[in-house]
Amino acid sequence: MCAQTTGPLPNVVLVGKKPALVYAVAALMQLTSEQNEVVLKARGRAISKAVDVVEILKRRFLGNQMLLKNIQIGTETFQTPDNRQRFISTIEITISKTS
Amino acid sequence: MCAQTTGPLPNVVLVGKKPALVYAVAALMQLTSEQNEVVLKARGRAISKAVDVVEILKRRFLGNQMLLKNIQIGTETFQTPDNRQRFISTIEITISKTS
Repeated sequence: MCAQTTGPLPNVVLVGKKPALVYAVAALMQLTSEQNEVVLKARGRAISKAVDVVEILKRRFLGNQMLLKNIQIGTETFQTPDNRQRFISTIEITISKTS
Repeated sequence: MCAQTTGPLPNVVLVGKKPALVYAVAALMQLTSEQNEVVLKARGRAISKAVDVVEILKRRFLGNQMLLKNIQIGTETFQTPDNRQRFISTIEITISKTS
């Protein structure tokens, strides 16, 4: 598998530094095989790519079969090595496929 | 005004290349003066920044007074100078302020 998937939730695709198409294919595989719902998660600059992934899925693969169920945005906090607090924006896009 | 606002819709803030705080302040000015609703629009890589702007508004300025009303994503098509068709993802985030 090219894209990362987290342990406890098998229907999560973490969008990172790879090309958007890689994550689109990973999401598509999950949508067509195991379950009919997948959550795309991204942080920071990868947020734009997560949106690209959804648009690629809609335009190239699923068309009207794709349902955009939810978009959630938020902030994660983390500490830098020099003990400063930093904030990073996050996005979670839930999509599903109608059969 | 530092951030661009489009002609027909005065409550739109176009998020581009300036620092996120600039757009946050522009949105805040609109929310506190003219109307209680503002739409943040962004394309391509600026999508991440639009999410940052919303999070800055929530975290630094408005807190629980901020209402996230709608998030819409989409694709815009344009032609490159060599006549190829290109796609760019877009986001529109509608927020309002409770009084």
